[in-house]
Amino acid sequence: MPDDRFEVNGARVLADLNALRAIGAYKTGVHKPTFSEPHVRSLEWLAAKLPDAGLTATIDGIGNVLGTSTRAGPKLLAGSHLESQNYAGWLDGPLGVVYALEAARVINPDPKAHGAVEVASWCDEEGHFGHFLGSRSYVGLVTEADVDAARDRTSGRTMRDALRDIGLAGRPRASAEPGRHVGYLEAHIEQGDTLESRGLAIGVVTSIVGIWQYRLNFVGEQNHAGTTRMAARKDAGLALAKFCVAIDERFPGVCGPRTVWTTGRIILDPGAPSIIPGGAEMLFQIRDDDPAVIARLEDLLRTMVDEVNAQGPCSATLENLRTGAPAMMDEGFQAAIEAASAALAGSRSLRMPSGAGHDAQMLATIMPAGMLFVPSIGGISHHWTENTDDADIVTGAKVFVDACRRILAG
Amino acid sequence: MPDDRFEVNGARVLADLNALRAIGAYKTGVHKPTFSEPHVRSLEWLAAKLPDAGLTATIDGIGNVLGTSTRAGPKLLAGSHLESQNYAGWLDGPLGVVYALEAARVINPDPKAHGAVEVASWCDEEGHFGHFLGSRSYVGLVTEADVDAARDRTSGRTMRDALRDIGLAGRPRASAEPGRHVGYLEAHIEQGDTLESRGLAIGVVTSIVGIWQYRLNFVGEQNHAGTTRMAARKDAGLALAKFCVAIDERFPGVCGPRTVWTTGRIILDPGAPSIIPGGAEMLFQIRDDDPAVIARLEDLLRTMVDEVNAQGPCSATLENLRTGAPAMMDEGFQAAIEAASAALAGSRSLRMPSGAGHDAQMLATIMPAGMLFVPSIGGISHHWTENTDDADIVTGAKVFVDACRRILAG
Repeated sequence: MPDDRFEVNGARVLADLNALRAIGAYKTGVHKPTFSEPHVRSLEWLAAKLPDAGLTATIDGIGNVLGTSTRAGPKLLAGSHLESQNYAGWLDGPLGVVYALEAARVINPDPKAHGAVEVASWCDEEGHFGHFLGSRSYVGLVTEADVDAARDRTSGRTMRDALRDIGLAGRPRASAEPGRHVGYLEAHIEQGDTLESRGLAIGVVTSIVGIWQYRLNFVGEQNHAGTTRMAARKDAGLALAKFCVAIDERFPGVCGPRTVWTTGRIILDPGAPSIIPGGAEMLFQIRDDDPAVIARLEDLLRTMVDEVNAQGPCSATLENLRTGAPAMMDEGFQAAIEAASAALAGSRSLRMPSGAGHDAQMLATIMPAGMLFVPSIGGISHHWTENTDDADIVTGAKVFVDACRRILAG
Repeated sequence: MPDDRFEVNGARVLADLNALRAIGAYKTGVHKPTFSEPHVRSLEWLAAKLPDAGLTATIDGIGNVLGTSTRAGPKLLAGSHLESQNYAGWLDGPLGVVYALEAARVINPDPKAHGAVEVASWCDEEGHFGHFLGSRSYVGLVTEADVDAARDRTSGRTMRDALRDIGLAGRPRASAEPGRHVGYLEAHIEQGDTLESRGLAIGVVTSIVGIWQYRLNFVGEQNHAGTTRMAARKDAGLALAKFCVAIDERFPGVCGPRTVWTTGRIILDPGAPSIIPGGAEMLFQIRDDDPAVIARLEDLLRTMVDEVNAQGPCSATLENLRTGAPAMMDEGFQAAIEAASAALAGSRSLRMPSGAGHDAQMLATIMPAGMLFVPSIGGISHHWTENTDDADIVTGAKVFVDACRRILAG
């Protein structure tokens, strides 16, 4: 019998992913907000698995799980996240963590392999309490004051209270050790339909797009929905609806080939059926990997706001909530993933940007970073129906582990 | 000295209105949701005042306050309501209650007057728990099952729990006694700017418009705001915004001269900045006093929904939540208000429909009913800045009481 201890075990990868799905299951997906009971159990599950890969597990003071190796030679950091969006998919996060775990299990004990894979599960990638708090903490971009200020976006609970309740208060936060790692590799589901629609198995991520987020606020005049003549109205909700439609009409003439934009939230004030809204607010987001495109679109947005204010009857303001520069993935890591894909997936790969944000963009600020995508069925993401074919999951694991070996071999 | 006991005392009317404003004050208005502590204190305030007008006070099992007289002769029922919309105006409701109280105070003890004015404060006209529950109960249109089902629209608290907490559980609900009253008269602020903009003092209400209310639901596909190409999106929020703009463009070609329509609430599902809304809902209302106009507009709405479904990418459904026939005010009552206005307000009156719903529309189902409006400064309503000039309040009181005398004199 051949010794298969040093080869990817597809059944084990699928079993681990299903074990994580069973913790906090919701329909065919999961509901694991950051620091919820099923999220904490998932962190503990990972910490218990890491010794099998020759790693020492720690859960740090912000909920990052890290598996560190004492093996000589180069070290590659690999991972993703274990919490989920609310009522969302089973693979968004866990796929990258289990691939990293599998890579460590087969590479770290392999006498023929160079160095070791170290595993990370970054806390709160999904942003329940903030904005990539776990990976940002690791790269040194989170202060104690930031942790003090962080609150759960749904319940309003402070991060400090949540950390205390799960026994992590007072622990140190782990920081990247300069020079320790040759880089960071992360696998993730694509969350779009580009790979599936072209029959491909592997996405080689070239960059992670920047996210620019805005709050648009419209002010009219709150009044009675029965007694105020149509001509006398200043309906902030209608002004907002017209703005959304104008964006839909005018952005395509200015955007880049892969720009996306979304109005994800609308709130009318006071929001009662018999009251003309005096206020209306929308959260609006633009993503692109070219800051020049964003600059053009932001100019257009400002022009449109000026037009609303000039024409009336409502006024509008634009507030920039978040400005995210795109992160470029390392060229050598892209080549390693492509070579692994040629060896194990018939070169069914495509270089592509990531439209979603990932922890890799934070790690990329201090070390070479790369990302690998596997297909998403129907492109569905952030919904419990999100899924990937088992065969694609296993192929992805094999390509990921081979890419790790190639990166470690230099 | 002339005996002024049987004449309207303007200072007393203003003092009473300000006393009610002090209970649950919010800025220059009030915050008195149904069965809140300040609302209950306002009911008790009224019950304590009614004996001054020779009336016996009761608070019934649904929170109506009634002052009944044993005086011989015809009886006119008069009143309005004491709870408010959230953070709303001080006169919306209390004006009509204090006018009725003043009418009872000056008419009931007057040896030269015919009969008596009886006073009512109808509970929950503002619809925190339902839809005119107090006056509908009085006219026999509310079942015990309706009371069981009623819940506060903000807190979700059941009406049963609220009634128990304020000590009204188990009390009988008062019902109209057939033949007891010659009719019902209600005063209210106009809640629009028609009277003010024409320099008039009194609105003689001809009808109360019907309210038709709809829920429009749009279904698209929830997906990731970064990874889903624009061309592949089914954005339910955008479909809703387009529908709002289409209403704004197409309704004016079909509506009547006084039709009004309002989108008061919009909810996107799930309403997160990084998720394309898979669902979107709006509450939409049309008001008119001509059912034929409503029928035309409802046809147009259905056509527009069919167009959304035919064109895609989202689907839409239209649900009729509420159908309110218009209520006609009694011609004799209109003439009495006009005559009183000629005597005491220099005929600065106008016959006009009410665009807002009022308890009078419920009383009109079982007895002759009339309504009188006083001007609203700037037409502002359902907002704490709502106001009426003190001189207009006093003029309105005099016209109201004189109209009561004329109606009782037959």
